[in-house]
Amino acid sequence: MTPFALKNALNNVRATTPLVHNITNYVTVNDCANALLAIGASPIMSHEPADVRDIQTICGGLTLNIGTLDERSIAGMFAAGERAGELGHPIVLDPVGVGASALRTKTAGDLLDRLSVSVIRGNMSEVKALAGGAASTRGVDVCPDDAVTEGNLSASAAFARAFAAKTSAVVAITGAIDIVADAERAFAIRNGSALMGRITGAGCMLSCLCTAFAVANPDALLESQVAAVAGMGLAGQVAEERMGGLDGNGSFRTYLLDALFNLGGDALEAGALVEELA
Amino acid sequence: MTPFALKNALNNVRATTPLVHNITNYVTVNDCANALLAIGASPIMSHEPADVRDIQTICGGLTLNIGTLDERSIAGMFAAGERAGELGHPIVLDPVGVGASALRTKTAGDLLDRLSVSVIRGNMSEVKALAGGAASTRGVDVCPDDAVTEGNLSASAAFARAFAAKTSAVVAITGAIDIVADAERAFAIRNGSALMGRITGAGCMLSCLCTAFAVANPDALLESQVAAVAGMGLAGQVAEERMGGLDGNGSFRTYLLDALFNLGGDALEAGALVEELA
Amino acid sequence: MTPFALKNALNNVRATTPLVHNITNYVTVNDCANALLAIGASPIMSHEPADVRDIQTICGGLTLNIGTLDERSIAGMFAAGERAGELGHPIVLDPVGVGASALRTKTAGDLLDRLSVSVIRGNMSEVKALAGGAASTRGVDVCPDDAVTEGNLSASAAFARAFAAKTSAVVAITGAIDIVADAERAFAIRNGSALMGRITGAGCMLSCLCTAFAVANPDALLESQVAAVAGMGLAGQVAEERMGGLDGNGSFRTYLLDALFNLGGDALEAGALVEELA
Repeated sequence: MTPFALKNALNNVRATTPLVHNITNYVTVNDCANALLAIGASPIMSHEPADVRDIQTICGGLTLNIGTLDERSIAGMFAAGERAGELGHPIVLDPVGVGASALRTKTAGDLLDRLSVSVIRGNMSEVKALAGGAASTRGVDVCPDDAVTEGNLSASAAFARAFAAKTSAVVAITGAIDIVADAERAFAIRNGSALMGRITGAGCMLSCLCTAFAVANPDALLESQVAAVAGMGLAGQVAEERMGGLDGNGSFRTYLLDALFNLGGDALEAGALVEELA
Repeated sequence: MTPFALKNALNNVRATTPLVHNITNYVTVNDCANALLAIGASPIMSHEPADVRDIQTICGGLTLNIGTLDERSIAGMFAAGERAGELGHPIVLDPVGVGASALRTKTAGDLLDRLSVSVIRGNMSEVKALAGGAASTRGVDVCPDDAVTEGNLSASAAFARAFAAKTSAVVAITGAIDIVADAERAFAIRNGSALMGRITGAGCMLSCLCTAFAVANPDALLESQVAAVAGMGLAGQVAEERMGGLDGNGSFRTYLLDALFNLGGDALEAGALVEELA
Repeated sequence: MTPFALKNALNNVRATTPLVHNITNYVTVNDCANALLAIGASPIMSHEPADVRDIQTICGGLTLNIGTLDERSIAGMFAAGERAGELGHPIVLDPVGVGASALRTKTAGDLLDRLSVSVIRGNMSEVKALAGGAASTRGVDVCPDDAVTEGNLSASAAFARAFAAKTSAVVAITGAIDIVADAERAFAIRNGSALMGRITGAGCMLSCLCTAFAVANPDALLESQVAAVAGMGLAGQVAEERMGGLDGNGSFRTYLLDALFNLGGDALEAGALVEELA
């Protein structure tokens, strides 16, 4: 990507150590914090409605992940999101499992409607459910029928652009092929590893990285999200290459964090498999 | 075990990718999710009462673990459990720390009374407390006096069978020697590693695996639970064999997940140390 | 340190397996549990107000960490802390992010005022905020201006002693140089690794270890806290030495737990870099 290089997006994260406020699920929250530290950002978690405004005030951006939403954390998401809006901070929405329950569908829809969301990051089933275009879901996993393939890439990109236009957000749809789009442009990213689907949290971690990249690159939101998605995918590839015969998803999780930790701007620029779609 | 082979139970999990809904403690929830992914299942966590019925509806079974219970998650457990009952989905109850507090004792008892629990998985102190036969407890660990030994194996199996008869559930009591029983039959399983007691979550992970095995083997509940318990123990042995001189419980945790990830049906069949008790 | 040797403090933990009740954040709670197991203690987590009195009753001490406080866990902290006070159990307070929000500042202050806190463990920004002497904070990280250095060591120690005198607690301020002080004496500890700041939870884990050491060494509180802080730092050094070229913070986290697991009394005595300050 030129003129804005992907490596700049990563280097800006490492140079500025953005503070990222995350209201996220308790399943993968530790990995989210360590992923942010690995990439050079600083994580803070706070969901209590009485706490989140102050915390958001000292941070640069907000991640909202509904993976284990409850009444209290939902209230915290709206309170934090409103404060982020007042301050012009980017908000990344990860609608985990939207479509799998009425509460998740309503909550994700309301967050999108009432807050100033900068980035939507999910799998295709989740993003379709959020867009109201599909009711199919297999819990927190993508439905096979929804997967982005070479065959439906053009149509998928058109969907992403249209949803980006409707929501005024960057839309990042991740899977075997990732799509990152705003209303005008769409990119396909072919980094990644199938093993990322065999650990919990690869998507959650990425959403937090998306926030860090958005905070550190205020003048290049779309490009920053391409960099975050490609960087996560590239880290997955590095982690997979490191797997030995006795290793499984326990080791892969560790290697993935290690790869994020060691990811440099030049390696990202060289390894990113990014194609701008017509 | 014949005619139903243990390997079938595992192969059925890997072939069907059961969706497992877990309401579990926040201490070990990440390990639980990764253990389910390692064994070939797909985890979903949701505790919010307004969310759990929908989530249970799309899943095949339910794990209830009271390790860090609170007012809200308790309500979620009952709501999810009632829905599981309506749908005929298996419920695995892990009564963590029952006997250590009045709330845990009452909650576990009520869950057992009011829900259709298919499997009870705990250490002997917990299962005794749940059965009302012992008040002794050492927090979340087994009391030394309660441990299953070769000397009390026959009496322990009789207790397990009687409690299974009373509750109409399979009872899985894990420790140095594991016992899995229904009202008719009891098995001793001698797989495992002492290091499993030096990490948090070995029991919690197993309970989630028990749910996955129950979902994937609807016609062989008892045998499926023997397979889950033996499989977890065998993974512990594989993990222990991999330990190097600098390794500790951090590495053991990773190796345990790796071993679950790589566990095959034939290896389980060959390595399971299962004895049917008279 | 003589006559009480640091190694005794550690050996007492391993010999007595203290049960430690922790009300802590959900970000690092798994690492906290595994760190306690690594050092030879036994962790229990419980935050529900209706559960905590019973749980504290069977434990030896209490860790209070406000990292992801909410209305319910705050109520649990006071209830558990009151019970600990009735029983004479040590309480370790980790005021994560105090100063970063009004709720955190008020909660940490109230816990300190209303409970019988034995140990306060935080970074210098947090401890200053708790002492009311500074409002500066950078989320959960220390402000660069607040860091303990060789240049301000004497003044830092004087501050720690004065705050210890005011609160009747041992004050443990951790950073590149750690300070542990009561009203009379102060120690500088120069163990540790910069990588401890690149994982989440090093401080949280240490606070839990502080509780275990306090429980196991009732007649040597100050010395026990020096041992806990030096032990954690030494484990960080061992972990750092183990880092290979592909390793990052994922592996470091694992190595840190491993190093705690393998830490022996003699190694602690030999490796501790402890200086009593005038």
